[in-house]
Amino acid sequence: MNYHILTLFPEMVLDGLNTSIIGRAAEKGLLSIEAVNIRDYTKEKHGHVDDTPYGGGAGMVMQAAPVCDAYEALCERIGKRPRVLYMTPQGQTFNQKIAEELAQEEDLVFLCGHYEGIDERALELIVTDYLSVGDYVLTGGELPAMVMIDCISRLVPGVLNNDVSAEIESFHDNLLEYPQYTRPEVYQGMRVPEVLLSGHHKNIETWRRQQSIKRTLERRPDLLEEANLSKKERQYLAELIQEEETAKTETQAQESNGSDRAEAQK
Amino acid sequence: MNYHILTLFPEMVLDGLNTSIIGRAAEKGLLSIEAVNIRDYTKEKHGHVDDTPYGGGAGMVMQAAPVCDAYEALCERIGKRPRVLYMTPQGQTFNQKIAEELAQEEDLVFLCGHYEGIDERALELIVTDYLSVGDYVLTGGELPAMVMIDCISRLVPGVLNNDVSAEIESFHDNLLEYPQYTRPEVYQGMRVPEVLLSGHHKNIETWRRQQSIKRTLERRPDLLEEANLSKKERQYLAELIQEEETAKTETQAQESNGSDRAEAQK
Repeated sequence: MNYHILTLFPEMVLDGLNTSIIGRAAEKGLLSIEAVNIRDYTKEKHGHVDDTPYGGGAGMVMQAAPVCDAYEALCERIGKRPRVLYMTPQGQTFNQKIAEELAQEEDLVFLCGHYEGIDERALELIVTDYLSVGDYVLTGGELPAMVMIDCISRLVPGVLNNDVSAEIESFHDNLLEYPQYTRPEVYQGMRVPEVLLSGHHKNIETWRRQQSIKRTLERRPDLLEEANLSKKERQYLAELIQEEETAKTETQAQESNGSDRAEAQK
Repeated sequence: MNYHILTLFPEMVLDGLNTSIIGRAAEKGLLSIEAVNIRDYTKEKHGHVDDTPYGGGAGMVMQAAPVCDAYEALCERIGKRPRVLYMTPQGQTFNQKIAEELAQEEDLVFLCGHYEGIDERALELIVTDYLSVGDYVLTGGELPAMVMIDCISRLVPGVLNNDVSAEIESFHDNLLEYPQYTRPEVYQGMRVPEVLLSGHHKNIETWRRQQSIKRTLERRPDLLEEANLSKKERQYLAELIQEEETAKTETQAQESNGSDRAEAQK
C-alpha cells in the first residue's frame, strides 16, 4: 500500500505517522507514506496557494491550480491515477467497512484542505471519494488523513504481528470489547474476576462474550441490531433487557411512592 | 485551556499538534499542551508498562498502576482533579456538541491506551468520560486525542483569529457548507457561478444558503431534521425533494418502457 498525502503541512503528517505499528510497517516495506507539499506547485511569486473567496466572506480558499498540478505531477511520476480521498465534514462518515474496502487499493491519495476549503472546481476535477472522520469541525484534513491511514494500515496483510489481534478487537461481530485485566491480581483492593484466573477456557470465553454483549447493550445498543449472536447469546441478551426493564419499573414505583408520601405530608 | 495527555508516545502528540492554529494559540498563551509519559511512572525494572491479559488471549494489556500513578502525580502538581477522557471505540461518539461542552473546562486529561487496552480497574478508578472518534479501530488513543484537541481548541475564545470563520463552517445550523471559489474566474474551462461575481450581497447569501441545503439533502439528509431553516428555505427544500421524486419516477418510467420494448423485440 502506498499513501500519497497532498498537504500544506508535510512534516505534521510524517511525524505523526512515524511511530509505532505504522512506522515499523513502513520500515518492513509493507507500506510507504509520502507527503507532497501543495505549496511546491504554486506559480505565484510569494508562494501563495490561497485567495479570498468569490462572493465575499471570511477566510481564504485554496486555489484549484496548485492542487490539481500536484496531483497530475504525482500521477505522471507513478504512472497511474489513484483514487483521491478528500477529507471533509461533508463526506461519507468513515467507518471500519470503508477502511476494509480501501485497504484493497495499491495506491491512495489523501487530499487535505485548510482554511475555508478548496476551490470547488479542483474537487470536481480530481476527487473520487468525499470522506469525513466524524461530525465535528477540524482545522484541516491532516489529522483525518492520519486517522484513516492508521486504520487502513492495520488491515494491510502483515502489518499487525498478530493477526488474532485485529480480529478480537472492538467491532468484531459488531460487539464492543470485553474488559481486560493484567497483573497484579489485586490492585487498590480491586480483584480480577475469578473466572479469568480459573484456567477454564470455555468459561472464560463465555464470560468474555457476555461482558461484550452487556457492554454493547449499555453503551452502544445501536450496534446490537447487526451483532452476530448465537442462540444462547440471544437468550442472554433478552434476559439483560428484561432485568433492565424490571429495574426501571422498580425505580419508578419507588419514585411514585416517594412523591405520594411527599403529597401526603403537605 | 490546559490539556494534559497521558500517553506512551509523547513526541507523537506534541509534534502533531505543534503546527498551525493550535501551535499559535499555545504561543499566545490561550492554551497549553503537556504530554505525560506513562512509562515514567512504572516501578518495573525494565520500564515495562504492560503484561499479558488474565484469562489468556493475544496482545498485551497496560497495567493499572503506572496509569493511575501518572494521573495522581498530575493532580498533585496542578492542585485539582480534572476530568479524564479515555479514548476508546467503546465510548460515546465525539461530536461538535460534546466539543462545545468540553471547551468550557479549564483542564482536560486525555488518557491514550495502546495494545489491547488498559486494565479495567484503572479505568474504573480515574476515567470520567469514555469517548470515541468514530466507528473504526485505531492503533492507540493518540490520534483521537489530537483530533479532539484540535476540535475543542477552535472553540476556546481567541484561538481563531476570525470569529466569523468558526460560525460559517460546516454544521452551523446543521447544514453542510456551500461550495467555495477563488481566482481565477475560469479554470480549465470551468467558470465561477455568475451570482458570486455580481456583488449583490443578498442574492449571494440566498444562493449560498440554497447550495448548503441542496448539498445537505444530497449527502447528509439525516442532518436536515434538525436544520434551522426559514419559511422560504423550507419551501425551497420541499421543491428540491419534489424535483428528486419527479426525476426518479421519470427514470423508472423510461426503464420500464425500455424493458417493454426489449420484451416486444423478442
